[in-house]
Amino acid sequence: MKIFNILTIFPSMFKSPFELGVLSKGIENSLFKVNPINLRDFAEDKHQMTDDYQYGGGAGLVMKPEPIVKAARYLKEKENSHIVLLDPRGKTFNQKKAEELLKHDSITFICGRYEGVDERVRELVVDEEISIGDFILTGGEFAAMVIIDAVARLIPGVLGDESSPVEESFTSGLLEYPHYTRPYEFEGKKVPEVLVSGHHQKINEWRLEKSIKITLQNRVDLLKKSALDSNVLSRIKSLRR
Amino acid sequence: MKIFNILTIFPSMFKSPFELGVLSKGIENSLFKVNPINLRDFAEDKHQMTDDYQYGGGAGLVMKPEPIVKAARYLKEKENSHIVLLDPRGKTFNQKKAEELLKHDSITFICGRYEGVDERVRELVVDEEISIGDFILTGGEFAAMVIIDAVARLIPGVLGDESSPVEESFTSGLLEYPHYTRPYEFEGKKVPEVLVSGHHQKINEWRLEKSIKITLQNRVDLLKKSALDSNVLSRIKSLRR
Repeated sequence: MKIFNILTIFPSMFKSPFELGVLSKGIENSLFKVNPINLRDFAEDKHQMTDDYQYGGGAGLVMKPEPIVKAARYLKEKENSHIVLLDPRGKTFNQKKAEELLKHDSITFICGRYEGVDERVRELVVDEEISIGDFILTGGEFAAMVIIDAVARLIPGVLGDESSPVEESFTSGLLEYPHYTRPYEFEGKKVPEVLVSGHHQKINEWRLEKSIKITLQNRVDLLKKSALDSNVLSRIKSLRR
Repeated sequence: MKIFNILTIFPSMFKSPFELGVLSKGIENSLFKVNPINLRDFAEDKHQMTDDYQYGGGAGLVMKPEPIVKAARYLKEKENSHIVLLDPRGKTFNQKKAEELLKHDSITFICGRYEGVDERVRELVVDEEISIGDFILTGGEFAAMVIIDAVARLIPGVLGDESSPVEESFTSGLLEYPHYTRPYEFEGKKVPEVLVSGHHQKINEWRLEKSIKITLQNRVDLLKKSALDSNVLSRIKSLRR
């Protein structure tokens, strides 16, 4: 069973988000566990302080090093946990990183709040720094939820028959083709003819063409980053003409 | 008061994440509201179906167009809500986009699940498509939380005195400098001398230099994207030599 630990001053934030949907079934089936840990339990002083003023001045508190280092070492010792600091400085999270994280049996996310964590935490216990994007959050908690969601769904058995993680955006290097469900006609807009033709090869060709067009239009940068197969490459060339 | 509506089949996911921390105070003080809306309430059939099989075949269900279109139109009519579809196809969310979203009094996030939403939803009611990054989630709910967090903290009064949103990563085009708090010495590692010198100009210079070095090392791409001021630019040049 894979374990996702979260070191946070707000463990109860994690209560409702994982009680529903396909991930909650993975938890019920013991495929993985979401384990928020209260940093205050690792604070050493009687007031259980986890933050303090910043050296050098400036608005905003900084997370104290002792509770975080103590908790991270405990988890490293106990379950050889991979220690991740969530921070704008880190490497940008993407699908490839989600697949990489899948190899660890235990991952611990350190969630900073306020101005962030004391620099010495990085030096002493952090294995890797990850950022989920170029924006600022009030804390690492939502970033941890996003990464847990992206990684947990890749654990074999979690998605079950619902969907295959193989054929989807970013894995193939292309964005997904448009999807349609009933009704066949909605406000005068019909499902494209080919999708009701029953002709599988034509459907696949249509979907590939749409994927390529959407990717060219919205995210041409994805094409440059990906190792596309030769069939896809020749289609891109012909569509670009 | 700014309103964040979320169209979802799992409204209770949003319960605990906004009950804590600085955002919960903003909600208490009526600076903004997080309003999850159950898509089933807008379903028209007696089974309150919100998803169905995919035309053209393939594993995975697709979110039906009727409930989403009906709910989005209701919110557009009621409060001129800005309708955002959360989808990997969308424009990548960043700090600039967070600032742009701040101008809308009401924002509605459509959270797809399974294979995504019926294509006609995009054509009929969506004002903007946003992706929070190049990774796949089980649904749009965590993406909505992230965006709400990033936008809500920019609402005047939400952060209070805790921190100023001005001096931080991505806004200035640089990553943040290291932060230190007590104890002065921790496991043999001392706070850098300059931060306890009381010399404000030297502290500012040290912080700028650290910011530049960290950005050069971790995210040189940020420098290219940003309009940096001339003082910063000349420091970068001298540090690069």
